[in-house]
Amino acid sequence: MPEALKATVSSNPSYIYQLGSAGVANTVEATRNILGGKGFNLAGMMSLGLPVPPGFIISTVACHAFYEHGQQLPQALLNEWKLSLAQLEKTLGKNFGGTENPLLVSVRSGAPVSMPGMMDTILNVGLNDKTVEVMAKQTGNARFAYDSYRRLIQMYGNVVMEVDGAEFSHLLEKYKEAKDVEQDTALVAEDWQQVIVQYKALIKKQTGQEFPQDVHEQLKSAVTAVFRSWHNERAVFYRKLNGISETLGTGVVIQAMVFGNLGDDSATGVTFTRNPSTGENVMFGEFLLNAQGEDVVAGIRTPETLEQFAVVMPEAHAELVRIKTLLEGHYKDMQDIEFTVERNKLWLLQTRGGKRSAKAAIRIASEMVGEGLISKEQAVLNVNPASIDQLLHPSIDPSFKGEPMAKGLPASPGAVIGKLAFTAEEAVLRANAGHEVILVRHETCPDDIMGMQAARGILTVHGGMTSHAAVVARGMGVPCVTGASKIGVDTLAKTLKVGNQVFGENDLITIDGHTGAVFAGAVPVKQSELPAELQHILDWANQFKKMAVRTNAETVQDIKTALTQGAEGIGLARTEHMFFEKERLFHMQAMIVAESEEQRKQAIDALLPLHTEDFVEILKLMDGLPVTIRLLDPPLHEFLPEKAEDIAALAKASGLSVQAIEKRIHGMAEVNPMLGHRGSRLGVTYPEVYAMEAKAIFAAALQVQKTQKVQLEIMIPIVASRQELQFFRDMIEKIAADMKVAEQGLQYTLGVMIELPAAAIRAGEIAESADFFSFGTNDLTQTALGLSRDDAGSFLPAYQKLGLLEHDPFVTLHKESVGELVKMAVKAGRATKPKLKIGICGEHGGDPASIQFFAEQGLDYVSCSPFRIPVAKLAAAQAAIKAAK
Amino acid sequence: MPEALKATVSSNPSYIYQLGSAGVANTVEATRNILGGKGFNLAGMMSLGLPVPPGFIISTVACHAFYEHGQQLPQALLNEWKLSLAQLEKTLGKNFGGTENPLLVSVRSGAPVSMPGMMDTILNVGLNDKTVEVMAKQTGNARFAYDSYRRLIQMYGNVVMEVDGAEFSHLLEKYKEAKDVEQDTALVAEDWQQVIVQYKALIKKQTGQEFPQDVHEQLKSAVTAVFRSWHNERAVFYRKLNGISETLGTGVVIQAMVFGNLGDDSATGVTFTRNPSTGENVMFGEFLLNAQGEDVVAGIRTPETLEQFAVVMPEAHAELVRIKTLLEGHYKDMQDIEFTVERNKLWLLQTRGGKRSAKAAIRIASEMVGEGLISKEQAVLNVNPASIDQLLHPSIDPSFKGEPMAKGLPASPGAVIGKLAFTAEEAVLRANAGHEVILVRHETCPDDIMGMQAARGILTVHGGMTSHAAVVARGMGVPCVTGASKIGVDTLAKTLKVGNQVFGENDLITIDGHTGAVFAGAVPVKQSELPAELQHILDWANQFKKMAVRTNAETVQDIKTALTQGAEGIGLARTEHMFFEKERLFHMQAMIVAESEEQRKQAIDALLPLHTEDFVEILKLMDGLPVTIRLLDPPLHEFLPEKAEDIAALAKASGLSVQAIEKRIHGMAEVNPMLGHRGSRLGVTYPEVYAMEAKAIFAAALQVQKTQKVQLEIMIPIVASRQELQFFRDMIEKIAADMKVAEQGLQYTLGVMIELPAAAIRAGEIAESADFFSFGTNDLTQTALGLSRDDAGSFLPAYQKLGLLEHDPFVTLHKESVGELVKMAVKAGRATKPKLKIGICGEHGGDPASIQFFAEQGLDYVSCSPFRIPVAKLAAAQAAIKAAK
Repeated sequence: MPEALKATVSSNPSYIYQLGSAGVANTVEATRNILGGKGFNLAGMMSLGLPVPPGFIISTVACHAFYEHGQQLPQALLNEWKLSLAQLEKTLGKNFGGTENPLLVSVRSGAPVSMPGMMDTILNVGLNDKTVEVMAKQTGNARFAYDSYRRLIQMYGNVVMEVDGAEFSHLLEKYKEAKDVEQDTALVAEDWQQVIVQYKALIKKQTGQEFPQDVHEQLKSAVTAVFRSWHNERAVFYRKLNGISETLGTGVVIQAMVFGNLGDDSATGVTFTRNPSTGENVMFGEFLLNAQGEDVVAGIRTPETLEQFAVVMPEAHAELVRIKTLLEGHYKDMQDIEFTVERNKLWLLQTRGGKRSAKAAIRIASEMVGEGLISKEQAVLNVNPASIDQLLHPSIDPSFKGEPMAKGLPASPGAVIGKLAFTAEEAVLRANAGHEVILVRHETCPDDIMGMQAARGILTVHGGMTSHAAVVARGMGVPCVTGASKIGVDTLAKTLKVGNQVFGENDLITIDGHTGAVFAGAVPVKQSELPAELQHILDWANQFKKMAVRTNAETVQDIKTALTQGAEGIGLARTEHMFFEKERLFHMQAMIVAESEEQRKQAIDALLPLHTEDFVEILKLMDGLPVTIRLLDPPLHEFLPEKAEDIAALAKASGLSVQAIEKRIHGMAEVNPMLGHRGSRLGVTYPEVYAMEAKAIFAAALQVQKTQKVQLEIMIPIVASRQELQFFRDMIEKIAADMKVAEQGLQYTLGVMIELPAAAIRAGEIAESADFFSFGTNDLTQTALGLSRDDAGSFLPAYQKLGLLEHDPFVTLHKESVGELVKMAVKAGRATKPKLKIGICGEHGGDPASIQFFAEQGLDYVSCSPFRIPVAKLAAAQAAIKAAK
Repeated sequence: MPEALKATVSSNPSYIYQLGSAGVANTVEATRNILGGKGFNLAGMMSLGLPVPPGFIISTVACHAFYEHGQQLPQALLNEWKLSLAQLEKTLGKNFGGTENPLLVSVRSGAPVSMPGMMDTILNVGLNDKTVEVMAKQTGNARFAYDSYRRLIQMYGNVVMEVDGAEFSHLLEKYKEAKDVEQDTALVAEDWQQVIVQYKALIKKQTGQEFPQDVHEQLKSAVTAVFRSWHNERAVFYRKLNGISETLGTGVVIQAMVFGNLGDDSATGVTFTRNPSTGENVMFGEFLLNAQGEDVVAGIRTPETLEQFAVVMPEAHAELVRIKTLLEGHYKDMQDIEFTVERNKLWLLQTRGGKRSAKAAIRIASEMVGEGLISKEQAVLNVNPASIDQLLHPSIDPSFKGEPMAKGLPASPGAVIGKLAFTAEEAVLRANAGHEVILVRHETCPDDIMGMQAARGILTVHGGMTSHAAVVARGMGVPCVTGASKIGVDTLAKTLKVGNQVFGENDLITIDGHTGAVFAGAVPVKQSELPAELQHILDWANQFKKMAVRTNAETVQDIKTALTQGAEGIGLARTEHMFFEKERLFHMQAMIVAESEEQRKQAIDALLPLHTEDFVEILKLMDGLPVTIRLLDPPLHEFLPEKAEDIAALAKASGLSVQAIEKRIHGMAEVNPMLGHRGSRLGVTYPEVYAMEAKAIFAAALQVQKTQKVQLEIMIPIVASRQELQFFRDMIEKIAADMKVAEQGLQYTLGVMIELPAAAIRAGEIAESADFFSFGTNDLTQTALGLSRDDAGSFLPAYQKLGLLEHDPFVTLHKESVGELVKMAVKAGRATKPKLKIGICGEHGGDPASIQFFAEQGLDYVSCSPFRIPVAKLAAAQAAIKAAK
């Protein structure tokens, strides 16, 4: 949300800021963090001359002091507060608790970051058995007075005295039943008096205490309750869910009450300045006549539309239309406004940036540029990058209301319908035969890769958001639900069971990768229409961003997708993915189980031309854009067969006994494969494999550059020291020399993945032997936090629930640890080579918050899966715009 | 070795330093690193007025320049060299290559660190077809001249011209056979002339080149060859083995020849100033009459004893005795001297600190203090801590010459004879029945722990120096050989096979944990006698060391051992080891598989009193010394049964089906258990387990402190952030409050293991919630380097062989990465709390080089396995003494 009020923090922020014509100057000195969002925006509106009820704001500074004083209101605050209240009384000529012209106030929470509905509000503070009578007399509206009083008792009883809110509702319902009325509006003053008696009795019974008649006690307790509500369960949960810091604290806004419940010339309502679903530039809101505060939101009566408002209260509506333009002009964004009409006069109680759908966000941002309201930079800032991802994939028709039969994790977005394939082979066969299948597995393994690509969707029983299935599916853009643990899968019987329902291979199911839902049968799915304005936003993003956005891809299909999505290069081509292709896999297996040099050489020689073809294809498609090829990374045992028939086939082909191959497979098993014999360690122990890869890469590049440009980058994974990298540099330079690479005019660079803490720590030295760095933040996260991506699912949720971790560190970079290592490595690497090219090719390359961090560190590029490219570009542009500010 | 010559580096070190009365002042300005050890000590001896042949030293600076100039001798060096040679010619009145009075020189390598026999030496440089004739005439000893010449041709041919040395020996042997003589001494001048012709022909045939007659070419090529020999295979290997830096380079010592082969008034010999086996203060050496240089070492003739020397050459012997005292007084250490007697005049060619047995080292160091020769500090410095470990365990009788039937890794020191037990249960049963058994396993697992303790020794087919078997065995002080991969073990058939030999459970084998050897049958084993002087050295070490030395122990037996060895506390009591005890294990398993809260609570309630007893025992034994108890660390699946019968037993006891338990076991399996659900993560997801542990600890401490002192430290493993630690602090403080711990006067501290890179990086924050840090360098090494201790065996050896890693990082701390994390964490932790107590409890706590590093970082204590305590104390003392210097 844009902060149009260019407020600066005063060096010594106060506990209280005046919210009144006299106090505006004072308030605008304070920032949103001091005032809270609600107070900050009220002050902003006041400075625009808009009708805001006067009052004062208790700042977050006071909230901190409250917690530091053992949850007591500090005396200094009470002193300031007394003065502020007196000022308010003077401004309005009213008296808080007075029996002449009593002042009523609202007490509302307002944290620096919007947390809609999460914290508490109390209206009509200042009413008691005496002032209610005065109000009744003064307004000539006893119903209004007693209705207001019962509202106070109800809210206060619930929020301050902690009586379950449902008990009040229950009493009221019973009362209405007895009276045989349906609507609250049918109750008259005497009814409310009755209700008040019952409410008071309820409080007394439940708490042993009376509802307080001392209005100052009411106010103090209300403020205390708001401060306390900062730590109530739903607020804590909301903050956790939305990544809001626990240390912000909340402000409290105390304002003179205005009343929408004074009769049919009064009303309360909310409106968006534009349509939050479609983005259309038309006000979109609701109102209720003769109602107060929360009634609209609470849904006690069905509100009416804004069109009706124009009819019923034309003047107030005209005022609202005028204000819409003013506020959008001021805040440079679509607003969500709360208003009250008291005896035909419009008052504004709140404004804030309006929540909107992804589609609306894009349209609004684009149109506001057209209207000259905001700059292109601001338009780019106004679209949440994460929301784009949703638009790019089909989803369940929102009008469908059926219940899912099971829930898993939303591992890769998109909704899809398909028949069931229980093995990768089956998925390939049936897809080739024209069937649309969903691959259903307990968990996937690299062996399944062809099946995963052939399937329309993937469903697994085990695994988290970053399990093999999830990562690969996101990379391929295939919808995927993981960890649907209630599902039983019998691969042999080819059945999927949920409770008593059994599905065979020809039954249909629908999975929703946006939400993790799994439905029986075919459920209506539709492709979101891409808003026409998306291209504008992306064009502007391209214009502003400083970091290049590359892709992690190596198959023809993925590369084509990535280019369509605007990839500016390949940041990670994983050679192992090529080896899983059938023919290559066979030679790879033969290489691994080879018992003689001769056998091994044969297998490798057979791989060389196939692998060269792979690289020719990639380099041709990329046509001069940079291509980073990573040499073999996963442990070799991942390539070995698991099934008896595959083992037998390998035995036959290799001339070894089944027993020998089984022994080899057993011998290669590892306790912690993530920390085992993989990455460049394979290049040390099987140098002939890395040499073959280098040869294939050079041969391909030499061939392609005869007709096209080639920008080649070779990358070594799992390196811990300069010595290791230099070992490979020597090896590869020798191969390049043997192949006369330089003589033929082919240039290439050699870089390293920084994916071990040791590498980050020793980056200064490593840079001596490296032309570029690419952070492998997946593995760097695993090692820095000692957290296995495949196993963390059993305890990470508990960590997030307890607030011990803000985000899943595999989704959003853990800045405090992994981020520190990134910082360290960038600093040390560039100290050695000031122009060192640095990128990142972990899953975090597609996460907006992480991209922001990478931009701050001055990285040259991020690389993400093809379908995340628009998200990454937008995030990169936002980072650049924020940095330029 | 003490550097008595307090040399300082000149700011601009020369290529050449004079080694002559005129040049001494010049040489002592340079350090050992510039001159090399040999040159440095020759200069030192010269400064004592001892008889050293004059010459000059080409410094390591020249060696570096040589490598920087593409392995060419730089011109500036050649210029200096010309002047130095002229100076030498002038001093001696001889002429290099001259036909009047020819100067012959020796060319010997001398690296800054002693690498005995690893690099090359060439004697008699300056001889050619002409000067040999002059020498023959001048000395009146033609045999001597031609013998010297053939030696030059042989050494030069081998070292410079790279003809296989064996070819020369072979020629000489054939010549002697033809002549029917046995000893070289039986050959006369004419024989050597014949041999020379054959040697020259051999060189010509093998290299196509003539042996050079130009003496300056001889000298240049000889120096070049010495420089090159710095990188020869055995030198590189030796440096790797001994942790010597590759970048030191070597010096070259060029000295006028003195001749031990001039006749029976000449001799050559080596002597130690004290007995290197026993340490007795008696010179111990050998000599050969009429011989040169390498003859003694090469073993061509059998040398005679020093007693005989006294008889044959009484004057030279007396001079040697005088020199012994001078040199020991100067170098403050036992010396290993090379000498030559030329016509009854004694010349010293080398002195260096003598290699000695552990026993001798201790005796010599202790006695030298008694003699007033060295300080106690120096005595402590003169004993290699690693060598003590050998003395504490039995070893194979050195007189036994049999061949082992298999070789594994020396995983835990000590030699032991036993019958074979193939399962842990069997080991326990048979040990209880009084048998001495060796537990033989493919690999051990935590389940085997009782069997490992019951066995006299452990032998595994798989696993490295830091496998489970190795770590646990060292901890227990049980001899262990791991990774004896040639052994076939059939657990069901209860047989061990090596080739065709088959051993059953009642056959005896002998394993040697010092060397990794496995012998068939019983081989003579003996307990080394502990030298009486060891206690002196350890007493002094205790006096000087600054760091406390604690132990990693939790069983009664281990704790008693540790106390005997002088433990100053427990740095790591692993609560999981207690759970593996039978009764506890059963409840633990029941807790894990529990399907209801009630079942879980029952199991935990059953554990509480048992666990309390464990802690009572520990705290009583430690009697007021600090005890750090680490809460549960390993993944729970390690506690679950593997065998069908155990699963059945658990099923029966828990009332669950076998299938349910199998499913649970399967469900808890992890892909990377090292990075999985373990350590404090268990405390988050099973808080009741940690709570039970805390209760048991407090209950025990409260009980013990009624009669004894208690110093209690509770430690949380696998923590990545302050939030996590604070979560446990809150939990444990609440338990302490509930149990009225403070009211009863019990104090305790709560600390954290720093064993994840994230924890090291965030140590500043973590320190806010920690009373102490303890580095878990095992896991910190695994995570920082991305290296699984259990899997690294398949590639680490290749890394060491290629020079990509100097040490096994699980044996000696990897300073460049893990060490940096330690530094970072110490700095940040103490920035938060300047007096933060910091220790280390990984395997590195018993490794001298690592202990030196920890001392440099200002750690308060190291904690190691009981049997390493004396080693650790000595290393800690050495570190403190070095720091004080």
